[in-house]
This record gives sequence, C-alpha cells and structure tokens, in this order.
Amino acid sequence: MKLRVKIFNVEIGELRSVVNVEDAEKIGVTTRDRVKISAEGGHVVTLVSITNSREVSGPGEIGVFADVLKRVSLEDGDEVDVTYVPPPPSVSLIKKKMAGGRLTSEEVEAIIRDAYEGFLSDVELTAFILALEYRGMDVDEVESLTKAMASVGNRLDFGDSLVVDKHGIGGVPGTSKDSLIIVPIVASAGLLIPKTSSRAIMSPAGTADTMEVLAPVDLTAEEIVEITKRVGGVIAWTASANLSPVDSVFIERVEYPLSVDPESLIYASIMSKKYAAGIRRLLLDIPVGPEAKVESMRDARRIGRNMADLGERLGIHTEVAISYGGQPVGRCVGPALEAREALEILASGGKGSRSIVEKAVALAGILLEMGGVAPIGYGEKAARSILESRKAYQKMREIIEAQGGDPDVKPEDIPVGEYKETINAPTSGYVAAVSNKTIVRIARAAGAPRDKGAGVRIFAKRGDRVEAGQPLLEIYAESPAKLQNALEVARASPPIRIEGMVLEVIRERSLIRGF
Amino acid sequence: MKLRVKIFNVEIGELRSVVNVEDAEKIGVTTRDRVKISAEGGHVVTLVSITNSREVSGPGEIGVFADVLKRVSLEDGDEVDVTYVPPPPSVSLIKKKMAGGRLTSEEVEAIIRDAYEGFLSDVELTAFILALEYRGMDVDEVESLTKAMASVGNRLDFGDSLVVDKHGIGGVPGTSKDSLIIVPIVASAGLLIPKTSSRAIMSPAGTADTMEVLAPVDLTAEEIVEITKRVGGVIAWTASANLSPVDSVFIERVEYPLSVDPESLIYASIMSKKYAAGIRRLLLDIPVGPEAKVESMRDARRIGRNMADLGERLGIHTEVAISYGGQPVGRCVGPALEAREALEILASGGKGSRSIVEKAVALAGILLEMGGVAPIGYGEKAARSILESRKAYQKMREIIEAQGGDPDVKPEDIPVGEYKETINAPTSGYVAAVSNKTIVRIARAAGAPRDKGAGVRIFAKRGDRVEAGQPLLEIYAESPAKLQNALEVARASPPIRIEGMVLEVIRERSLIRGF
Repeated sequence: MKLRVKIFNVEIGELRSVVNVEDAEKIGVTTRDRVKISAEGGHVVTLVSITNSREVSGPGEIGVFADVLKRVSLEDGDEVDVTYVPPPPSVSLIKKKMAGGRLTSEEVEAIIRDAYEGFLSDVELTAFILALEYRGMDVDEVESLTKAMASVGNRLDFGDSLVVDKHGIGGVPGTSKDSLIIVPIVASAGLLIPKTSSRAIMSPAGTADTMEVLAPVDLTAEEIVEITKRVGGVIAWTASANLSPVDSVFIERVEYPLSVDPESLIYASIMSKKYAAGIRRLLLDIPVGPEAKVESMRDARRIGRNMADLGERLGIHTEVAISYGGQPVGRCVGPALEAREALEILASGGKGSRSIVEKAVALAGILLEMGGVAPIGYGEKAARSILESRKAYQKMREIIEAQGGDPDVKPEDIPVGEYKETINAPTSGYVAAVSNKTIVRIARAAGAPRDKGAGVRIFAKRGDRVEAGQPLLEIYAESPAKLQNALEVARASPPIRIEGMVLEVIRERSLIRGF
Repeated sequence: MKLRVKIFNVEIGELRSVVNVEDAEKIGVTTRDRVKISAEGGHVVTLVSITNSREVSGPGEIGVFADVLKRVSLEDGDEVDVTYVPPPPSVSLIKKKMAGGRLTSEEVEAIIRDAYEGFLSDVELTAFILALEYRGMDVDEVESLTKAMASVGNRLDFGDSLVVDKHGIGGVPGTSKDSLIIVPIVASAGLLIPKTSSRAIMSPAGTADTMEVLAPVDLTAEEIVEITKRVGGVIAWTASANLSPVDSVFIERVEYPLSVDPESLIYASIMSKKYAAGIRRLLLDIPVGPEAKVESMRDARRIGRNMADLGERLGIHTEVAISYGGQPVGRCVGPALEAREALEILASGGKGSRSIVEKAVALAGILLEMGGVAPIGYGEKAARSILESRKAYQKMREIIEAQGGDPDVKPEDIPVGEYKETINAPTSGYVAAVSNKTIVRIARAAGAPRDKGAGVRIFAKRGDRVEAGQPLLEIYAESPAKLQNALEVARASPPIRIEGMVLEVIRERSLIRGF
C-alpha cells in the first residue's frame, strides 16, 4: 500500500521501519515481519515494528530509522509503496543449521552476505551464532564460512611476493606487544609481514591499541599494501582496512554480549582475515595454561591441527607454536606500558623480560624459516642476531614513520598513567601463580584499553623469590577514581599468590613447534 | 556524566538510549552495554547505542526512545546523570544455562522478571530461548519456570470452587471450535470452566479468534472471574486478562521469528496460564498424526506424562487425551466458518461432522468425570445428553450474552468471505489424505485469521469416496486478491490426495484416555 515517509533521524543498528497497527493489518504484517519499501530511487527491505500511537506513525505513514537511508534515498513526506515480503532465504538456512543441518558453500555465503548487509535481525543473527556453538560445523562448512567472510570485505594484493604473518590466539595479558618485536625482525630479514590485528574486546590491550601509542593504525587497505611493499612490515587495525568486516558484526552484536565464541567461528574469524590479507605462510601462536583462552595441550593440539588443515584448504601454509600462557608475558600490561616495554627491548638490542624476548625471538625465528630466509634450525639464531644488532629497532622506526608516527620516540617519552599505586608482598616466599584473569580485570578497571596509559607493571613472576614488603606490582591509571577501582579489584582477589616453597618445576617457556 | 535528554518519539520494543561516541568513551560504554539514567523523578536502565552523528545525539545529549518514557518521566532538555552499569544478574544466569548449568527457582525468577520488565535485549532473550532448546530443563527447572511466568501477571481467584479446563496442543486446523462446544457442555453440568486461549500465531484460527466472531473476548481478569461465577463458563483471550504475559514476549520476539518451540517452554507456557487462571483439574488434548504438532504416539505419551507430572507439582490434577490429528477436525477452517460450524452443532443438538461432535463429547465427558459431576465411565453419555437436549446451546447463548455478544445470532447470520471458489476432484477414488499443513497455508493465504470470514470448507475427508468433478473444498476470502493467493497455494500443492482404493484401515477417531 502507499504510505508517506516519516524519518526518525537515529540509527538503531538494524534496518527497521514503523507502521501503524491499522496499516499493518492491511499490509498483512505482524511485528518483526519484513516489508519492502519501494521509492522512486530504489527499494529496501526492512524489519517492521507496529505502533498504536498516531504520534509515532499514524495511519498512512511509515517511520524509517536512519540506517534505512543508507540503502535508499528517502525524504520526509515521500510517497512509497509498502508490501509484505517473506524473510530472506538466509533465515530458513539459519533454521536449517539450528536443526543440525549441513550448509553448502552457497548457503553459507547467503547468510554471511545478509548478515553483512544488515538484513538479519539481532534475533536471527544470535540464532546463527548459537547454532554454530551448539551444532558445530564440519571442515567443509568452516572453509565455506572463512571464504564467505573474506569475500564481503577488501582483499590485499601483494602479487607473487611471499607474505607471512603471525597470529596469537590471545587470552594472556601482555601479549599485545609480541608483534611490535616480531614484525620488525621479520621485515628486517626481507620478508613482507602486513600484520593486521584487532583492538581489545575483553583484554586490556590489543595489538592495534598498543601500536597506536607509537603511530596511527587506522590505515586503508591501499596504505597497508603500499607501506608493506616499501618497508617490509606494518602493524595496522583490521577494521579500518575492512578485512572480513562481518567478523566484528558477529562480535559486537552477539559474541561479546553473550560471551560466546563458537570454535568454528574462531577458525573462520582468524583465517578469513589472513585470507583477505593475502597471507601465504602463517604462524599461529597458541598460549596454553590455566586462565589462558586454551587451557589444555590437548585442546591446543586439536585447534592447531584444525587451523593447519583449514589453512591448507585456503592455500595458506600454517604452522602452529604452542607457547606457555600460564601467566602474563613480559612485565607490562596495558597499551602504553606494553608499547614502552617493546620499544625498550628493541632499542636495547634484546634486553628485557626473558618471557617476552625469548618468545618473540623464537616465533620470529620460525617465521624466518617458514619464509625461506633462514635454514631450518637456524631461524631463532638469525632472529636473535637481527634483534641484538638493533636492525629490528631501525626497522621499527621505519614502520612507525611510514604509518605516520614519530620514529624518534624514546621509551621514556611514552606517557603512562600519572596516578599509580604499588602493591607489596604481604609475606615472604616464592611466587606460586600470577593470575591472568585477575591481572586483566585490574588493568581494565584501571581504564585500559581506552585509557592508553592505564595498566599494570608486574615485578614478580612465577617462581621468583620475594620478601615481605617488596613490590609485587604497580597499577597505573589516568584518573584517581579508576585507580581506586583497580585497587579494589586487586584487594578483593590478589593477582599474585605466594607460597613458602616451589611446589613444582616451572617451565618459564615451553615452546613446541608444530604438533 | 550529566547529559541533556533528547526524546525520540518512537517505540522500538527495547529500552534503549543513544549517546555520542565522545560521551560513550567518557562514560566507559560500548554499543550494547547498559547505562543507568538518573532523573529527578527516578531512574531507568537502558541498553545504549553509540552514534557518530551530532545530528542524532551530539556530545552532551542522550537520545531516549519512547519505550524508556514508560519507566521514567523525562522531557526534552531534562538534565540527567548517566553512568555505566553492568548487565543485570539475569544475563550471567542465561550464560549459565547456555553452558548447560542448572538454574535454581530464584535464578529462573530473575530471568523471567527481567524479560517481562523489558530489561533483556533481543540477543539475550534469544540466547535464553535457544539455551532451553539446546540444553533443556529438568522437571524442577520447568516447575520454577512455570511458577515464575505465572507470577509476573494476573492471578484469577475462584476461592474453593472446583475449576476445570481443557487445553489442546494444537497444530491441527479446525480445532479452534472444540472449546465452543466443550465449554457450554461442561458449564451446563455445573462446573466452572474459565477457558482462556490465545489468538492464532501460525494457524488460521485460535480459539480466541473464533469466539470473537460471536462475542468480545478481550475481557479483564475481573470480568472473567465474574462471568465464570455467574454463568459457569467463559471463552476469553489470555492476553487481555494478562495471564502469564511473558509467554507472548517469548513468542513474538523469538519463537515466532525463529520457528522454535523448546519443549520445556511448551510445558511452562501452557501450565503457567492454567496456574495463573486458578485451574484445579485440567484435561490436555494432544492430537497426533502426520503434520500435527505431535507426530508420534511415543512423543505424545512423553509430553502427556511430563505435563501430568508438572500439573501434580502445581496442584493441578492433569489428565491427557491423545486424539486423532491426522487431518483437519470437522469440515470448516477459519474463524467465522468454525464459529458457524460450532453454533450449528450446538443449535441442532449435536448434528454435524462426526470428527468434531464425537471429539467434543468425549473430551467434555472426561471433564465431567474429572469434575465429579458424572460417574467414571458415564461422562461421555452425560455430555452427549447435555448437547442433544440443547442445554449446551442455551448455556452458550448465556456465555455469548455475558461476554457482550448477541445471544440470538443464528449460524447463517455469521458473515463469511463473499469471494469463494470451489476445487473439484480431478479424478474418482477414495480420499487418502487431507494435509493439515496445506489446509493451513490455503486458509492463511485466503486471509485467516485476520480476515474472520476467510477460510476453507472441506467436503471430503480421509476414507470418503469421491467422483471426478465432485467438490473437494471451497475457499472463502474477503478480497479477490487473497482468494487468488489461496488458489495459487492450492494449485501448487493439492491439499486432498485421492487414491484408487483404500490403502489402509482408517480410524476416523482414535481417542485414548490417559497414557
């Protein structure tokens, strides 16, 4: 039927319009059905809400939210034709998956396209993600999902160059700085490494958040390709390059609010971005330990094997390193503190916390071997020499400059939170555990990752001997209130546990290559 | 922080507000987090959307949708205090259920209360329903769910009277008229039967839609109690009495869009309404057959046993009748056609299609026995005598009048769709099947249940002999376009299948009492 447009100038994150209950009956729609709005300039399909209020949408009117205007040009008072349309085919495909069915690649593509275009409601999108959680996907479906997710965004094209990358599964605080050491080492060795990564969602610092302390990370796809070709490496934000953009739709709308992370989507999320970024050789780092994202070696091996299989199907040769993730990596957590720690290690030629230096050198070494610029068994040595000779530092300065940052920045110039408080050891003994989850909670309560200067500096790691009254950690915040918040978290659940003796042998670093 | 209110005068079905990205960072919220808005007159918690547009919500402003104004009084320009609040505890309880945990009665209550109050987002509500679908609930949890759902709406109070009711599981077209025959028989026998029922969601006619042809059904809780006490029975709409209102929230927001119907929620949905309506003895009718909601006797017995167990826990003595649901019941489908058919049967003292007359008499008879007004084994006879003596017709006239309808309405006075078309048998033979699903689709395409006069009249049922060219069914619609829609459905998938011979013995009616 013919209705007059009434624009609600607000975005709600869904394509939605509002009609009066009288017109709804005539059109034959009920709340959450869909209507097609046909105007002179084109048409759009929206979900429909129904109102009793003549003030909101009276008979003869159709209210449209601002999201709709991105799809079709409409103005207040425009006459449009409004008809019922059935849900898009992807909705019945989601129902198929909910019932445990297997999706073909065309079917997966249809769902991903509609999710990306905003054609699916929150309810439908949630049903899709939870169907993946409860019903799972086989490897063919995951391959389809990965390719479909990559296909709706940009693709980086490096021609025939051997492009490598490293990706960490995460969940361990302090790991956002890994890439700030690994990327310049690998780029120094002549390989191309366009490292794209996300901002923190649940953690106190994502690689993009930490790099942003040194240089802008919101680069376009073209800038990433250009800089990588010119200086060998880049550390950029995935979202600004629009690589596999539907992933963040899933995360923001469903996964983050519900704290769900279906395994098939973990694979597709990582690999779709690497596939879109044109990566040919990928090293996947899976930290394992209590309170890491992956808690058992068994799970790590399964995930690693699945990722390698998936990589093979995508033409991305994938190796997996299982690393020690039982406590924070390095001594700093939070964007500015981690950026500072990484820069100190680079500038000093490898001086710093062994847990980060050794991990970065080992992973970079594997990448040099995978990229064919170091013989098998000699990658780590080559990586260490690049770090110690300060070639990596020089390369990092080039990368910072190429991305628009200040290459001359000194670690001590990096501003950190001016409000700080030290927590001391209540008793003498050996450190039995440093809790990943509690350190994360403290750093986030202090304001990280939004407040770049917020975070935690850790003075005692697992196995260290401490005396009563000796500092265990220091909390940094940008406001007194947030410092208080963080202190309250730390007091309620102490992040560092001290025992009278060492209870078991500690492996400070356990790096298993392959699986 | 302090913000100025900007009202968006439109309801979106969620409590939601919109802040500018600059303020969001200061408040420390991201999209789909929650904020507490504190004003002079009180406070409210809403989900928050974040906008880049200064036109929508500039820095210093907070846009609020009309839904929010129902919770707290706000006007354009009001200064309010806006702070981050964590998700309500019910969100982590939903996550607990998603992970397969068992919910206590307090935990179930918290979820139901928040769902009813509108505190849960579509994403969270979907997660709850799908957790019930995939994880299930044990009988203790279902009891908690039932009581919690009943507790957020009205409760009907009949004192010490013996209040009985009958509920059909549905899924078979033509069953909306059952109650129009059963209720007056049972009320004539001196029992109280306050039948509340829903409108159609997926079917062409709910009991409330069909009764509405004869009298208003949107009665308040007080009216239902008063009429039932006065004339013995009522046939009203559950929603207007506000019995277990959260059920329709689940249906409208999640179950209908996704076509899901978790078994635990089927139990809780039915029994919460009966519990809230003060029912003491309940007869549950489960039609079984191909294309019915319940397709196997095994499922019917399991569902019946679970309902009886649940009833016992609620103090509602529940018996179960498993009836034949392999084809439509009676000869008419659609609100006006079914109201007419029921009234014809009542006015004629029981003349009409055996499949509806015998079913109604059998179910009413069981209720008379359950209510203690007929000896065991004699209920059906007593019910038949009430129907044949036209006492039931007289009682129905009283009920219609009490609800505000015209007691003198004649079946032939009831208006049905003026556009109609007959479909004839393409060949001679025996009717092998009448498809429930196709009859539903035809009747809905013809406009039912919104168009009361739309529907289908069926001339040949399973086992009947038909000759080529003889009418099989007649489609009624209120507009030529809808008649065309219905004819297209009927042509694409013929609803009545004719075979040259009877393939198997037909049981026209198979009523099993108990289980």
